[in-house]
Amino acid sequence: MSKTPASRTIWIDQDDPTSVVCIDQRLLPFEYEEVAIRTSSEMTTVIADMVVRGAGCIGVSAGYGMYLAALATDGMDAAGADASLRAAADELEASRPTAVNLSWAVQRQLGEILGIEDPVERIAKAKALAETIADEDVAYCAAIGQHGLGIIEEIYKRTGETVNIMTHCNAGWLAFVEHGTATAPMYAAHRKGIPIHVYVSETRPRNQGARLTAWELQQAGIPLTVIADNAAGHLLQHGKVDFVVVGSDRTTISGDVANKIGTYMKAVVAKENGVPFYAALPSSTLDPKLHDGVAEIPIEERGGHEVTRATGWLDGKHVEPQTAAPGVNAANYGFDVTPRRFVTGIITERGISEANEEAILAMYPEFAGTD
Amino acid sequence: MSKTPASRTIWIDQDDPTSVVCIDQRLLPFEYEEVAIRTSSEMTTVIADMVVRGAGCIGVSAGYGMYLAALATDGMDAAGADASLRAAADELEASRPTAVNLSWAVQRQLGEILGIEDPVERIAKAKALAETIADEDVAYCAAIGQHGLGIIEEIYKRTGETVNIMTHCNAGWLAFVEHGTATAPMYAAHRKGIPIHVYVSETRPRNQGARLTAWELQQAGIPLTVIADNAAGHLLQHGKVDFVVVGSDRTTISGDVANKIGTYMKAVVAKENGVPFYAALPSSTLDPKLHDGVAEIPIEERGGHEVTRATGWLDGKHVEPQTAAPGVNAANYGFDVTPRRFVTGIITERGISEANEEAILAMYPEFAGTD
Repeated sequence: MSKTPASRTIWIDQDDPTSVVCIDQRLLPFEYEEVAIRTSSEMTTVIADMVVRGAGCIGVSAGYGMYLAALATDGMDAAGADASLRAAADELEASRPTAVNLSWAVQRQLGEILGIEDPVERIAKAKALAETIADEDVAYCAAIGQHGLGIIEEIYKRTGETVNIMTHCNAGWLAFVEHGTATAPMYAAHRKGIPIHVYVSETRPRNQGARLTAWELQQAGIPLTVIADNAAGHLLQHGKVDFVVVGSDRTTISGDVANKIGTYMKAVVAKENGVPFYAALPSSTLDPKLHDGVAEIPIEERGGHEVTRATGWLDGKHVEPQTAAPGVNAANYGFDVTPRRFVTGIITERGISEANEEAILAMYPEFAGTD
Repeated sequence: MSKTPASRTIWIDQDDPTSVVCIDQRLLPFEYEEVAIRTSSEMTTVIADMVVRGAGCIGVSAGYGMYLAALATDGMDAAGADASLRAAADELEASRPTAVNLSWAVQRQLGEILGIEDPVERIAKAKALAETIADEDVAYCAAIGQHGLGIIEEIYKRTGETVNIMTHCNAGWLAFVEHGTATAPMYAAHRKGIPIHVYVSETRPRNQGARLTAWELQQAGIPLTVIADNAAGHLLQHGKVDFVVVGSDRTTISGDVANKIGTYMKAVVAKENGVPFYAALPSSTLDPKLHDGVAEIPIEERGGHEVTRATGWLDGKHVEPQTAAPGVNAANYGFDVTPRRFVTGIITERGISEANEEAILAMYPEFAGTD
């Protein structure tokens, strides 16, 4: 750890407000580095290469990416600027196809800054909105933590014993700006003195669980056990888990949850064993246009080398040794979709909702008829 | 590959019949090494350290281990030899607690060689039985291949398209002596010219799928795709798999299947999606004493370092980089148990049986009343 971690995952540089700075999450927890980003194309690369990752953090990064795109329109009239902003938006939206927050943030920026003649006003509005998106993310995650805390308190009241929670991938503060979603209730319970223990699924092929979630919880002093993804079923079968909570990269208005590959198997096996399964997400992750997640959500396929190699740390160096037989073919699906019938509830900034369209629309009436 | 692979996984040295030789499976497929074993204690270490692994191969190795134990009783009378043989048997049986073939082979040897006064006769009998156990393993795996071939032929007749098979861990020839169990139908179909493709789950934490099964299929020219264990659910959900076939380390007479950790989740999700799930095993893997696998089968727990590190190959060297946040706690369960309600059928050397006690006893009447 070469520097003290920042308190947010991404921010505008105080000393040079034409630059955005983010934590390079590819090297965590083995090395801490910050990356300066000066153009929307650089932001596209940062998102595509997973320097930043996680649903909320991607959305906020895209919001800042559009601010950088607006900076590049200095001196342009509305027509020229709009063409430039739309090109940047298209590029940003294509960087991670499964993440709905990305498109949500980009479209929100376009709605605010297209058609403005005055470059100074255009840039100021893009900057203010990027900061608003980041601040909302922080506030929403804090609210999710309070709602999820209720689930933990209820279990603790009933059992009087340490509450065992299982999670997958990283839906922690690193995946957002602060707090996280799936982890927010854990942090809230820990602060309140409720004893919890978290099973952290390592989350091959990129090990966001073993690297990032485990590191986050360790830093916070929350007891945890890292497991191979394969071990989740055994623990669920043997009553070792009180509830499962994960994040989401896109959730349909009908309650189907797209999240990191492997989530679906955990949800099916949790239901089989009567263990509640929750997805925690800000409303920016809800996609009001989609009703059948399995059929409609595009699943990102990444390079097979992530599966045939491991990413680790050896003798102070980042290494990627071959872990599969050399020369074999590999497939690498980034996400899967958990149909709503396996989802006990979704935890959002407004509260906990059942995973069906009627219940979600009752909580988010503004999404009705938007598809 | 420094030498040509042997045609069996373990054998008595032709040049020195007081020594047993096996392939060191820890380095495959990156390096090929053979290990000479001269005592039953060395065999215990070889099994515990997973130099050899896989249900059948462990059983055969234990059979050879008892031959080495018998060799060490040269010059002893029956009383002295029996004490020595029982001590060796206890040590061998404790080396991998989940594997029933191990105990099966050891007890079979004890039944044959205890109480024999003449050391020459004792050693000759132990040697002959060890070879018989190995030869039976080969014959049984070949028969499993023919029975499983019927499943593949039936699917191919119905669809006329490449048959997509999913497997987990390594139940290939490396896990036995030749052929394997889960892989035997694949080899049989491929020899018959039926187009197949195999999804090979990498099988963290030890990657027996990505390393051994992928290498075996690659050597045989069978098309395969390595996937992260997390991706199995997505493929099953999207109709990409015609059937799942795995091996087993212990199967109860009632049809509950203990196999490599992660098997249970695949079986539950296969059933959820209407995909048949088979376990392929020789009858030596059946445990007639057990009726409730989840409650009764002991699950081996291994060191957490296997989960917090990856085993791979880098610049021609075997490396084990840290893949989890340094200093975190990890749990490492070697196996899980798939209850019979998720098992479409078990494929044994006598044919395919439903996974319930009545059907299994109808095929193996000699197991009735043995508990």
